[in-house]
Amino acid sequence: MGTATPHIQPTQGILDAGKHYFPVRIYYEDTDLSGMVYHANYLRYCERARSSLLNMLGIDQRAAIEAGEGNYAVAEANMRFFAPARLDDSLTVQTECVELKAASVRLAQKVLRGEDCLVEVQVRVGFVAPNGRPRRQPDLWRAAFSEFFAKESE
Amino acid sequence: MGTATPHIQPTQGILDAGKHYFPVRIYYEDTDLSGMVYHANYLRYCERARSSLLNMLGIDQRAAIEAGEGNYAVAEANMRFFAPARLDDSLTVQTECVELKAASVRLAQKVLRGEDCLVEVQVRVGFVAPNGRPRRQPDLWRAAFSEFFAKESE
Amino acid sequence: MGTATPHIQPTQGILDAGKHYFPVRIYYEDTDLSGMVYHANYLRYCERARSSLLNMLGIDQRAAIEAGEGNYAVAEANMRFFAPARLDDSLTVQTECVELKAASVRLAQKVLRGEDCLVEVQVRVGFVAPNGRPRRQPDLWRAAFSEFFAKESE
Amino acid sequence: MGTATPHIQPTQGILDAGKHYFPVRIYYEDTDLSGMVYHANYLRYCERARSSLLNMLGIDQRAAIEAGEGNYAVAEANMRFFAPARLDDSLTVQTECVELKAASVRLAQKVLRGEDCLVEVQVRVGFVAPNGRPRRQPDLWRAAFSEFFAKESE
Repeated sequence: MGTATPHIQPTQGILDAGKHYFPVRIYYEDTDLSGMVYHANYLRYCERARSSLLNMLGIDQRAAIEAGEGNYAVAEANMRFFAPARLDDSLTVQTECVELKAASVRLAQKVLRGEDCLVEVQVRVGFVAPNGRPRRQPDLWRAAFSEFFAKESE
Repeated sequence: MGTATPHIQPTQGILDAGKHYFPVRIYYEDTDLSGMVYHANYLRYCERARSSLLNMLGIDQRAAIEAGEGNYAVAEANMRFFAPARLDDSLTVQTECVELKAASVRLAQKVLRGEDCLVEVQVRVGFVAPNGRPRRQPDLWRAAFSEFFAKESE
Repeated sequence: MGTATPHIQPTQGILDAGKHYFPVRIYYEDTDLSGMVYHANYLRYCERARSSLLNMLGIDQRAAIEAGEGNYAVAEANMRFFAPARLDDSLTVQTECVELKAASVRLAQKVLRGEDCLVEVQVRVGFVAPNGRPRRQPDLWRAAFSEFFAKESE
Repeated sequence: MGTATPHIQPTQGILDAGKHYFPVRIYYEDTDLSGMVYHANYLRYCERARSSLLNMLGIDQRAAIEAGEGNYAVAEANMRFFAPARLDDSLTVQTECVELKAASVRLAQKVLRGEDCLVEVQVRVGFVAPNGRPRRQPDLWRAAFSEFFAKESE
């Protein structure tokens, strides 16, 4: 008696040849009165893509925060805007790792509509302790990134 | 020469027995310092679900706005919060139509985590002309809602 | 040597005859492609007003969270939308306390443009422990609300 | 018979020696589960500051959009994050103009807490026609920026 609620697992994206691809759909909340996506929102899409990538690499951010180990924080972000996205657009965030250090990772991200690059984002994220100080990222996290990174040049 | 970017179509959810089900994943941007989802964000998830439902019913909101016909605007929203969502949670927004009038629609929405209802939202959206005045919703839109509505009681 | 950065203290609003008044200005980020304020954002303005009211009453939310005492969480919100706000509008959020219980407070809020009420929000916030369970609000907080509440009927 | 609602005009900030200073207060909505401000939000504060600066220079963005003339769009943003802001922090966004061209302006912005610089943002905004193409900014706007710019070196 009683049927279960249909449940669709939200996608984490796909990994392909050392790159991660993540879909984003544009809703009302994303646009502003110019009719286009508000510029700061592209940083949100890039962060969704990075979090999904971390999940796919087996990294549990929430457990690390709750255990007081720390979290990734953005240290640097450089954005170039080439063309705007609009309501109902279906975009892809492409992410690749361009530098891996003891306490930080540098990623190159592109927000694509089909083959067109709308926005380019270079991001450096550092691991920080709960007190905000830089800290070596957990070894398993670094190893996961390293393996992902390696696939790129294969 | 050159391979296409892997593209994943973002899901619009599924229609089942007169109800619409839409997946939402919780990211950093959704939470606040309490560790839980910021309360206003549930309205955003419900709007994403409604927009996806409209798309599945063949209703093109962007074309209607660009043609100066008008758009849906929220006239009323009643929310009950039962339990909080957290980072990495995978939720489902369930939507059903509870009243269909000439210029407005009333929808009952639930934000679910598995079988648990976290938040309940009753929403009334009205169709408005570009000058903000209420206007009869387009006949085709009403017919689409009507058909969706009918499936519920089958 | 060197001169200090000019610093303007952001306003917390004013208290007058048992009501709190808080200014909000509408920026690009607040609007959507309809040219009007995205509906969920009014909940953010109401929360800014409540937080500012708490500050004026001498309640330190951040200290309470950091000490593990707990925080206020929205349990119920009922919104009526009468007219839309637009870019560069200068609004006022009016807040009054309509019910004070051991673990919760009910507030009536209005988002005003001049004398016009754009949105009405009835909100019930409950105090919750870090584990999410309802908890009696701190005595000092309740006393502060009680005093504020009393001024209304004077 | 009836008293007017107390109305506090939201501040536009102050102009001093060719720089603009704008206050921002941190609310729940601004933070994430790390307890700090979500990184993308600093772009919102910088945009609030730029819009307020435009207003103070006599530039009416909303009128220009509604007249179909065009609007400023961010073309480039480079962010460095030095220290995080937290709930209830009272910040100042400092803005100065570093380059003025026919169709674009480059601004250097700092998000300050007291004398500490938390985030640095270099932004290039271009004027675009409603079709998204670059367009010369209105002469009066350019003149206003030019005058503001000149004050810096006085």
